[in-house]
Amino acid sequence: MAISSNPPADAVSSSEQMAAFSEALESRRQLVYNYLDNWPGVTSFKPRDIYDALFSYVRQRGKGLRPSLLLLSCGAVGGDEAQAVPAAAAIEIFHIWTLVHDDIIDRDETRRGHPTVHAQYTRLAREVMDLSDTESAHYGTAVAILAGDLQQSWSFGLLADSVSRGVSPEVTLKLVQRMAGSLTPQLLEGEMLDVQFALAPPAGLSEDDVLHMLSRKTAALLDYAAWAGATIGLGTHRDGDGLAGKLGRFASLCGTAFQLQDDLLGVTGDEGMLGKPVGSDIREGKRTLIIFRALATVDEEARRLILSVLGNDKASSESLKETVAILQQSGAFEYVRELANSYISQALAILETIPESDYKTLLRSWASFLLARKY
Amino acid sequence: MAISSNPPADAVSSSEQMAAFSEALESRRQLVYNYLDNWPGVTSFKPRDIYDALFSYVRQRGKGLRPSLLLLSCGAVGGDEAQAVPAAAAIEIFHIWTLVHDDIIDRDETRRGHPTVHAQYTRLAREVMDLSDTESAHYGTAVAILAGDLQQSWSFGLLADSVSRGVSPEVTLKLVQRMAGSLTPQLLEGEMLDVQFALAPPAGLSEDDVLHMLSRKTAALLDYAAWAGATIGLGTHRDGDGLAGKLGRFASLCGTAFQLQDDLLGVTGDEGMLGKPVGSDIREGKRTLIIFRALATVDEEARRLILSVLGNDKASSESLKETVAILQQSGAFEYVRELANSYISQALAILETIPESDYKTLLRSWASFLLARKY
Repeated sequence: MAISSNPPADAVSSSEQMAAFSEALESRRQLVYNYLDNWPGVTSFKPRDIYDALFSYVRQRGKGLRPSLLLLSCGAVGGDEAQAVPAAAAIEIFHIWTLVHDDIIDRDETRRGHPTVHAQYTRLAREVMDLSDTESAHYGTAVAILAGDLQQSWSFGLLADSVSRGVSPEVTLKLVQRMAGSLTPQLLEGEMLDVQFALAPPAGLSEDDVLHMLSRKTAALLDYAAWAGATIGLGTHRDGDGLAGKLGRFASLCGTAFQLQDDLLGVTGDEGMLGKPVGSDIREGKRTLIIFRALATVDEEARRLILSVLGNDKASSESLKETVAILQQSGAFEYVRELANSYISQALAILETIPESDYKTLLRSWASFLLARKY
Repeated sequence: MAISSNPPADAVSSSEQMAAFSEALESRRQLVYNYLDNWPGVTSFKPRDIYDALFSYVRQRGKGLRPSLLLLSCGAVGGDEAQAVPAAAAIEIFHIWTLVHDDIIDRDETRRGHPTVHAQYTRLAREVMDLSDTESAHYGTAVAILAGDLQQSWSFGLLADSVSRGVSPEVTLKLVQRMAGSLTPQLLEGEMLDVQFALAPPAGLSEDDVLHMLSRKTAALLDYAAWAGATIGLGTHRDGDGLAGKLGRFASLCGTAFQLQDDLLGVTGDEGMLGKPVGSDIREGKRTLIIFRALATVDEEARRLILSVLGNDKASSESLKETVAILQQSGAFEYVRELANSYISQALAILETIPESDYKTLLRSWASFLLARKY
């Protein structure tokens, strides 16, 4: 029951454009990771466990979609991408610290096929330090809390380093102020709501609540990345044409569409692709829009089945499969897919309003890449 | 067996000076807390649980020793304290986030007579949300992680707000860079070492290891606060006379002396004063300098007793009292007290090298106040 991503026609970049984009993505990813690997301040990260934990997700190398968005947005307004490399590195580390702490909160044991930071140090405490299970888990959590804390600080340090690449102190401070005053509060609001929603009865929440949570948890960081790149590129924090705001809005809409797609894949994707059983998001009790939509439209019997399986880690595979079938029949998948597509269309319409350039083409491909990913 | 703080003669401010200092401290504390209470960005702190958690320790009002140090250091180099208020507020919030996360790691349930953030939300989850004990503890930890994360970001935002008080963008960025690149790594190194030392056999550690940990965990923040205040006051990040460095070193030495005194009080202070039983630091396994000094000097039998009680939460009150008596006889208390006093003397000698002013007198009183505190 793998789902076709079925994006609007104008979202599709040609295969030639996608090949050019792959190359552009890879070169920017390398720029950013080289910058991080050679950052002189890393010698101050001690002791060994903190250092290793700090670089754990960095060494695994993400795709670099967030830093690339920042660099391309800088180029799209006519800026020099080299000036934006420290900020791009900051965005990658900022994203990583939120993952490290989120993995503690979500009790996730693996990420991209590797143990999460807290899981890794829990194991080390048990196997090398010979601690009890409880003490090992506590040690693992402590290391992950401290490593994430240090990464957050590091991301502010990287951002401030923009001055070393010729970004003015005024613009650099503006980047710091918006990260501190807007990005972090939004993102942490999203994380907190995600935790609270999973504990709340679904009847107490609305579709708008769920969409608000998604916009905070996923879209805010992409919004910031595009805005920051454009702000560096414009070299001023007064942006008469509103280009930075437009690029931020483009990225934000792509981010919400991405998250809706992620929710679809979490229910419908096959086990081999996702690395977790079909419907596991339902068993985990994730308050996705699919669930809300279905609950609002199905009959009482179907409703009871969905609620009996949602967040019930003892739910049988049969009842899970039955639930997925009900969700499918309810039209909830189609509804969420169309909503995601409408966000993509809006995003691309906004992108159309910025001046033509090779960067604009790359940003269109960036959106295609983000929204056509395979697990 | 309460210990006299017994400071070097030149450390003692007159009672008249201390009265003037109390007034100066209170007015600065109010300046900083008013700034925090009226900070426009607080409306972005959502949802309710995060907002309440964020202000939990802020509402309890610390003595304001760290922000006052920053403001007085600004004045001591001839600067305008009003310019340093956002940075002073940043230091208070920075200190608070480290407490919120440290309390999770140390599993402390109370702070200043109130529940710690994670303990408070654990209770709320159990009593209001009706979660199981395990789930309540996890919810409490999640809220405290996210609240501390947001506070860290807030402290960078407050620091960046220094520009709004006329601090130049260059100096403001320098404050951000040193907080990110030096203060946080040092402080988190101290926290990580503290966790690791408590799990290591005492024989594998040296006195220098313990002093290094203390300098990171406690002294680094005071060093930064004094340096930052002076840097704002000087209005430049080139400080020809090295005044900012000197004030930082003064504060750092006071910080280490304070921590050594704290360790003495943790073993010898009486129950009424400390709010915890005599010797509880020993039962908790804290790797204090007192323990190291005693282990290095006592005979084998006494050594065995100390090691049998250290970190043993089942140790009887009798064996604890016996251990405290052995520590006393070993001369370890005297050794640590003299070491603390030598740090205070060095700190005051450095303070003497800066130009005379009322601020300098207040800084001397600040040191007396810090080091003569009663629980």
